[in-house]
Amino acid sequence: MLDTIDPDRTTDARFGLARRVTLPGPLRLDGGVLLSPVDIAYETYGTLNADASNAVLICHALTGDQHVASTHPRTGKPGWWTRMVGEGRPIDPARHFIVCANVLGSCMGSSGPATINPATGRAWAMGFPVITIRDMVRAQAMLLDHLGIDVLQAVVGGSMGGMQALSWPATFPDRVRACVVIASTARHTAQNIAFHEVGRQAVMADPNWRGGDYHDESAPTAGLAVARMAAHITYLSEAGLTEKFGRRLQARDAKSFGFDADFQVESYLRHQGLAFTDRFDANSYLYITRAMDYFDLAEEHGGLLANAFRATRARFCLVSFDTDWLYPTAESRSIVQALNAAGAPVSFVELSSPYGHDAFLLEAPELNRVVDGFLRAGA
Amino acid sequence: MLDTIDPDRTTDARFGLARRVTLPGPLRLDGGVLLSPVDIAYETYGTLNADASNAVLICHALTGDQHVASTHPRTGKPGWWTRMVGEGRPIDPARHFIVCANVLGSCMGSSGPATINPATGRAWAMGFPVITIRDMVRAQAMLLDHLGIDVLQAVVGGSMGGMQALSWPATFPDRVRACVVIASTARHTAQNIAFHEVGRQAVMADPNWRGGDYHDESAPTAGLAVARMAAHITYLSEAGLTEKFGRRLQARDAKSFGFDADFQVESYLRHQGLAFTDRFDANSYLYITRAMDYFDLAEEHGGLLANAFRATRARFCLVSFDTDWLYPTAESRSIVQALNAAGAPVSFVELSSPYGHDAFLLEAPELNRVVDGFLRAGA
Repeated sequence: MLDTIDPDRTTDARFGLARRVTLPGPLRLDGGVLLSPVDIAYETYGTLNADASNAVLICHALTGDQHVASTHPRTGKPGWWTRMVGEGRPIDPARHFIVCANVLGSCMGSSGPATINPATGRAWAMGFPVITIRDMVRAQAMLLDHLGIDVLQAVVGGSMGGMQALSWPATFPDRVRACVVIASTARHTAQNIAFHEVGRQAVMADPNWRGGDYHDESAPTAGLAVARMAAHITYLSEAGLTEKFGRRLQARDAKSFGFDADFQVESYLRHQGLAFTDRFDANSYLYITRAMDYFDLAEEHGGLLANAFRATRARFCLVSFDTDWLYPTAESRSIVQALNAAGAPVSFVELSSPYGHDAFLLEAPELNRVVDGFLRAGA
Repeated sequence: MLDTIDPDRTTDARFGLARRVTLPGPLRLDGGVLLSPVDIAYETYGTLNADASNAVLICHALTGDQHVASTHPRTGKPGWWTRMVGEGRPIDPARHFIVCANVLGSCMGSSGPATINPATGRAWAMGFPVITIRDMVRAQAMLLDHLGIDVLQAVVGGSMGGMQALSWPATFPDRVRACVVIASTARHTAQNIAFHEVGRQAVMADPNWRGGDYHDESAPTAGLAVARMAAHITYLSEAGLTEKFGRRLQARDAKSFGFDADFQVESYLRHQGLAFTDRFDANSYLYITRAMDYFDLAEEHGGLLANAFRATRARFCLVSFDTDWLYPTAESRSIVQALNAAGAPVSFVELSSPYGHDAFLLEAPELNRVVDGFLRAGA
């Protein structure tokens, strides 16, 4: 078992420690495959207390990573949730031992299609086994075992991170004391699946994809950019797009009567698509969207969502945003109803924001107050 | 000037006459180009009465065509609006002289990127001038001149057809007595533009697109299929998708843990994408989506939508559907407010349907009653 501190990242030690561990496994996946070894890239912030009772696991979203509150090594941008995690923030290294791991199937150091298959010495590519949200959670549990953390003070996540957070008490009922689920859902709907399928088809339609075997050649960046553009629309609200861009034109005063990006929203989307391909692996995008589409927590528990929560004694906090049309408030409400039916303590709030699904990543003082209050109430 | 009855289509004469006319033009386009000649493929149903007062122009949507009530020559499917147009229907060849023309820029016989540029003897491809909704309307007016129709009893359209219907009285205030606008909008929003831009980027990312010069080689079908898939999601409601597909799997009982179409909604979308490429030209898709994105009727009239309607004496009928999130009811309502401000007579109804934007094409008895009542009231 190897657990190394990334030497390139030690300048970040003030904020967190970037680590990568190779666990022997095997990890039995929902698809039946035994995965071994299991690489997990993760970061920690703060110090685990004597009775290991202050650990908070943060679960990231589809294209997120372990760099929750430290500079991203490829983009040089600040961590993706510095508004929530850091000194004086609701999740605070002064009080919490914060763990954030790159999910299984991703491309920032944890095992996924871009990592080497030891059996062949080459990238797994599409030979990597298809995974589920529960598989991601099981890999995180292996990491906690390694770190000597038996029970989490809390597991916290937004979007796909919220799916993992919900899966935690369902999969390991005795290992979580509190669970925060933000802008998320207990299952992917037909529309959710449809948008992801468009993205996957865009990647697979790119001749550079080559059935996934592009690692020695040009990556399918054009297809991946289109996938990201389509997905990005679902992260924003119609009102937010109107406020941000409306029908405003680029620097030019008038329409070009051509096919350049005349409108600011076109230019913005093209930029989002291209920038994404610099930091993300196309096959990982396929695997993680598949895991999200497979996610249906009720189905994993006999078709009744309440069953998922009967064994746990965790407290729950659900937050939705009124303009989130990817995972609308109704999805959170149905989770709350299942938690009520299971007798689990739950607080729920719908926050108002013009920014749609992405609101959970943006400045949202109310969200911080809710999470802070909820975490302190259980401390 | 040539006006020919398509000999391959005479078996359809019972329903309509498929015609194609080459008008000398020139047609002055909004982009400044003079287009000449102008091909218009169209169908007529019924007989123009002695004082030419019974003409109804039907305007089709983005991927529609002139075959409003006759069999599509490529797919063999019935016309796209046989529920609205035909014997005993609100628009009835027994009473009306019905005209439906393939829009400028499209690919079913009217001038567009796939037709031959007489200056080069080759397909226009991306050399075709960028067009607007108003240009489409001007081309339709040229066709009416040719047919000896000075004033329309009514112009009727849904979706992009509704944009043309709205443009008609704004552009030719004295040539329309009634205007029916269904599931449409007076301008494309940032979100509308964003979805179209994803589609255009999907087409242009396909190496077979070749800057539009694919007419002698393989067409960019993979990119066009992805574009269609993305657009198709916007035509359906979340509830409609859930009702139709939910999370139901294909024939297989269980998940494949692979990347085949596991879910019925995936298989449906893939089919929609592929089938579309058999009947539609990729460059036309670029041109027509561009025309829609450029559409902002207020902008064409000094920034105030009411100005567009001050000169006309037409009556208006607006219909929206409650689950249409592409052109939601609020868009229709703002048109109604502008019509009120302009003093134009308008009736407006929001109909309930589970099917989202596509509802206007589906069986909708209430829609038929509304259109029938409105057209008869003015007869």
